[in-house]
Amino acid sequence: MRIGVLGCGTVGSSLITLVQRQRGTVEARTGLRLEITRVAVRDAARPRAVDLPAEAFTTDAAALVTDPDVDVVVELMGGIEPARQLVRSALEAGKPVVTANKALLASHGAELFAAADAGGVDLLFEAAVAGGIPFVRPLRESLLGEPVDRVLGIVNGTTNFILTRMTESGADYADALAEAQALGYAEADPTADVEGLDAAAKIAIVASIAFGAEVTVDDVVAEGISDVTAADIAFAGRHGFVVKLLAVAEVDDGADGPEISARVHPALVPSTHPLASVRESFNAVFVQGGAVGDLMFYGRGAGGDPTASAVLGDLVDAAVNRHRGAHASIGPLAPARMRPAEASSSAFYLSLQAADRPGVLAAVAGVFGEHGVSIASMEQEAPTSGGTDLDDGEARIEFVTHLARERDLRATLASLRELDVVRRLGSVIRVLTDEDDKS
Amino acid sequence: MRIGVLGCGTVGSSLITLVQRQRGTVEARTGLRLEITRVAVRDAARPRAVDLPAEAFTTDAAALVTDPDVDVVVELMGGIEPARQLVRSALEAGKPVVTANKALLASHGAELFAAADAGGVDLLFEAAVAGGIPFVRPLRESLLGEPVDRVLGIVNGTTNFILTRMTESGADYADALAEAQALGYAEADPTADVEGLDAAAKIAIVASIAFGAEVTVDDVVAEGISDVTAADIAFAGRHGFVVKLLAVAEVDDGADGPEISARVHPALVPSTHPLASVRESFNAVFVQGGAVGDLMFYGRGAGGDPTASAVLGDLVDAAVNRHRGAHASIGPLAPARMRPAEASSSAFYLSLQAADRPGVLAAVAGVFGEHGVSIASMEQEAPTSGGTDLDDGEARIEFVTHLARERDLRATLASLRELDVVRRLGSVIRVLTDEDDKS
Repeated sequence: MRIGVLGCGTVGSSLITLVQRQRGTVEARTGLRLEITRVAVRDAARPRAVDLPAEAFTTDAAALVTDPDVDVVVELMGGIEPARQLVRSALEAGKPVVTANKALLASHGAELFAAADAGGVDLLFEAAVAGGIPFVRPLRESLLGEPVDRVLGIVNGTTNFILTRMTESGADYADALAEAQALGYAEADPTADVEGLDAAAKIAIVASIAFGAEVTVDDVVAEGISDVTAADIAFAGRHGFVVKLLAVAEVDDGADGPEISARVHPALVPSTHPLASVRESFNAVFVQGGAVGDLMFYGRGAGGDPTASAVLGDLVDAAVNRHRGAHASIGPLAPARMRPAEASSSAFYLSLQAADRPGVLAAVAGVFGEHGVSIASMEQEAPTSGGTDLDDGEARIEFVTHLARERDLRATLASLRELDVVRRLGSVIRVLTDEDDKS
Repeated sequence: MRIGVLGCGTVGSSLITLVQRQRGTVEARTGLRLEITRVAVRDAARPRAVDLPAEAFTTDAAALVTDPDVDVVVELMGGIEPARQLVRSALEAGKPVVTANKALLASHGAELFAAADAGGVDLLFEAAVAGGIPFVRPLRESLLGEPVDRVLGIVNGTTNFILTRMTESGADYADALAEAQALGYAEADPTADVEGLDAAAKIAIVASIAFGAEVTVDDVVAEGISDVTAADIAFAGRHGFVVKLLAVAEVDDGADGPEISARVHPALVPSTHPLASVRESFNAVFVQGGAVGDLMFYGRGAGGDPTASAVLGDLVDAAVNRHRGAHASIGPLAPARMRPAEASSSAFYLSLQAADRPGVLAAVAGVFGEHGVSIASMEQEAPTSGGTDLDDGEARIEFVTHLARERDLRATLASLRELDVVRRLGSVIRVLTDEDDKS
């Protein structure tokens, strides 16, 4: 089985080495011998840390994907173009494609899945959502048992590393980010990670396969972690929570049929929840509903070897399917009916700074009541507590609400802003609770 | 695709209902229509809560497995005989078999896998190890990437429920067991669960597929939780651990090649470890090593619907493979070279009761030193502490060792028993630490 690889960066190099090392195991298991015959790179003359003859390298990616000497194409170049066109060409030429490209699938997934079906070949993408965690295939299989209701993911290692440092050492956001950058967990420009954009692309793919609908990254409301403060995390800790950046895909009954919600936001997660134990740069995907009940998949969401390992699993599947003349299909994706963000419900944590004088708490609490938002717990921190960032005569008040509609919470925030005793509104963070279910 | 089911208990009934409810989804996904045509039961006249005609039921299981109107056999009767003979007959008749029978595979796995290969058909068993958790297929696939070194499982829901109650409410073992029995999580005779026998069967299967070797339940050294005390759990909590019943399969280099160790025992697990977050009756399997790095699979290890969901996944695979004339193989199992228990190493927690007088601690600590066992931490509890079970003039001393050989630890215990100031040796529990790796 002759393999053409697009891209030879970290994952590409790991894959080439892994295929060569594990060729014997794969052959013993499947009867198929994997051989890397072509690798498309930008600069074919550059020395590479892989054991391939110089003539295997080419700068002509377009020729590689239609080369009759290539049976399966692995796309590891990333980005939308020319990856989209190359993957399409390969599929149209009847070649199965394995990709780890989340951006591509999150924006052009439906088009490419349709092209794969039309060509009667595989388009496999285990590594695109959660790196080395084998999660896509089990999700597709557990959907045979019964549809799932909700998927909660910690799918970005950079933000999870930063939040873990903030939680365990009390560091503030800027220091934790600097540490992540120093250790190579965060880019010099960390925007795509810390603002939730990377996670948004991944959850769009998850929502597409979980609900069989065409959800793209543009349908995902993404909020990052750059506004999460050390005080928020300390409050969470005192109340039995940890703060995690969650990517959420869920389906609910709407007036005109099922409505999908896909979003990324920080959340207070109960410390007894399995997702709370996902530390450092690890990833996890938690699946709820269906006959199988709760499931969680945990592992390395990134890194050359774990990702290459997931790609190799897909590659073997694709090779075996091609050999048998079969292919896996995720079926046509229906248009997605997205639930508007204001219509969704959640419990919320919020903090504000207010004048520290009698009657303030009653005034503030009254605003919640006016908008039908019920307070589950409240804590007031006076300026006398050491180490706070409060001015004289100010108190920090922190609330956790019961399940509330997003639109009611927004109205509450607007009214709080108008209250003259309120000096500043702080963080607003969703809370994952047992009641955090269908509204 | 016509399906014959052996057994119609909790899982069998759930499976029949699930197949009927999800038939449309399966057909849309695979083009194959699943139909339950025969169900073998002990009493065909007994009314059943499933929607099948009376003539589908038969008491003649032997005829079912060779019936030309049955394409795939699902074995859900449990036990060794007649299940073993029936599964063999089905495989020899060229019918794929899906089973959830851990006892059968843990004792006769190699024989049955060989029969499946000889017949050129599938023998699939996702539900046999961890109920609804899709773990067997991902493990087999991640082995393509690189061999794994170690698998740690919480694979018995009853004991995990009991240990969770002891940890979270401070209950002692007897009370927690009684609660588990009252809630239906434990049998009236809980021996198979609490003595680790159920987990031993499961880890034998895991070791077989992870290391490609014929490991049976007889190769597994099993120790249960009935000797774990509330004091042990309290000590663990004070030192950042929780007590879990772990099923461990690992491979190490031995003098004459790789040696396998498979065992079940309670362990102190660091509370930051993902396995520590597995609460109540949930199960999880933690996989270490290989290109993919650490992985964990979490979910419901038992129950009709989760188990039926895993069986359905296998059933669809088996049906698709049969339709294509293909089959999955786990390959021939090599004879297993087991590492003797005395040769393995671990950190240990142990507690003892000793006379509360000067010099005792030095005497006790001296015994550890004589046998080359290094003490990592020590805690002495005087009888004045409230709520203890100590007699007057007695102190409880608790130790955690560094990595020590099992044989040295045993020699230490023997010497401690001879020390006249030592009144009673208490629990000896392994500790999962970062240094708990290759010895």
